Amino acid sequence: MRDNYRENLESVVADLVGMSEAVQVAVRQATQALLEADLSLAEAVISGDSAIDKMHDELEARCFSLLARQAPVAGELRTVVAALRMVADLARMGDLAAHVAKIARLRFPERAVPEGLVPNFTLMARVAEEMVATAGRSLRERNAHDAGRLADSDEEMDELRKSQFRVILGQDWPYTVEAAVDVALLGRYYERIADHAVIMAARVIYVITGLLPEGENWPVA
Amino acid sequence: MRDNYRENLESVVADLVGMSEAVQVAVRQATQALLEADLSLAEAVISGDSAIDKMHDELEARCFSLLARQAPVAGELRTVVAALRMVADLARMGDLAAHVAKIARLRFPERAVPEGLVPNFTLMARVAEEMVATAGRSLRERNAHDAGRLADSDEEMDELRKSQFRVILGQDWPYTVEAAVDVALLGRYYERIADHAVIMAARVIYVITGLLPEGENWPVA
Repeated sequence: MRDNYRENLESVVADLVGMSEAVQVAVRQATQALLEADLSLAEAVISGDSAIDKMHDELEARCFSLLARQAPVAGELRTVVAALRMVADLARMGDLAAHVAKIARLRFPERAVPEGLVPNFTLMARVAEEMVATAGRSLRERNAHDAGRLADSDEEMDELRKSQFRVILGQDWPYTVEAAVDVALLGRYYERIADHAVIMAARVIYVITGLLPEGENWPVA
Repeated sequence: MRDNYRENLESVVADLVGMSEAVQVAVRQATQALLEADLSLAEAVISGDSAIDKMHDELEARCFSLLARQAPVAGELRTVVAALRMVADLARMGDLAAHVAKIARLRFPERAVPEGLVPNFTLMARVAEEMVATAGRSLRERNAHDAGRLADSDEEMDELRKSQFRVILGQDWPYTVEAAVDVALLGRYYERIADHAVIMAARVIYVITGLLPEGENWPVA
């Protein structure tokens, strides 16, 4: 009975890792759609978000059933509760990737990101995608050390966002108000993807060690 | 033993209602700080967010302890799981109110919102604040009907946001790029407060009826 419980819980965790891979692909494709003004890819990310939402619903139902079926022991309870949170974080990252794709679609056939900010967004998107990958991998490998390093990537993300603001709010912004607004919102979406990756990593650490990262409260989604 | 369990659960719900009231105040004060360029009020909202985060941590710990202590029966389990989610939604709404206050602080002594958009933001903030109040009240009164009506307010919010975009992206935007960017981000923050209120209301309905609102998946934070 308990072995069976543990097996079910491990299959939930494995599927969470799979979901993180689907989210990583969504972030990568949304970025490609954005930077190459690729309408069909943008549409694919937007319609593909319902598959990620389905994973969320299905995994959530399995967590509820694990909570209801049998009082889990301490480590199991911690894992189920953390899984419930991670599945919500991942679904939200999927939504944010779809938001990026929607701006790409809205501006098609133009590219929403002006030439001068393409390098910044290329870097920002790469950091975000790697953060999602690291969060998923650290869960798969139960690697608290890797999970803990995500805070550094998050600082890099903050720097990139600040640099965007310097460009769009500079005296010599050569593009439209519309482009500035798009850049501000797109930057916000990538920043939030990164935030959710950090939160997910904190939950990975919690599952492994039972502790929150030193000096931190449990971060809020 | 079970009576004690139920009492503890009801005290968690009562404190969630209290937390929703604190969030409502934060939204109202952040708006006032924003529209009146009131620096000390902005500072108060920003530093006051840690009190909301503390409520989050404390309520979350009580939910974990309820999950761990004794296998709850179906309705109780539903309530504990929903409470865990609601407490995260409320903490996030508090963060968003602090984000609004931070923009107010950043632009002080100027007002971040240009004259022409003050009526729009006044309305938007009122809708957001009422949505938080309705979500909290429907939880206190176990009123699924009121909770269900929040979807209408959310449509009003969407309309207000669209109208903002029409103004800032219109040919005759008379203000700076900076003001347009502030408006776009502020609009996003209020919209997200409203989203979280709708998600919270869906959870209230779930606690009362055991069902998600008709034709909807469980919304994601």
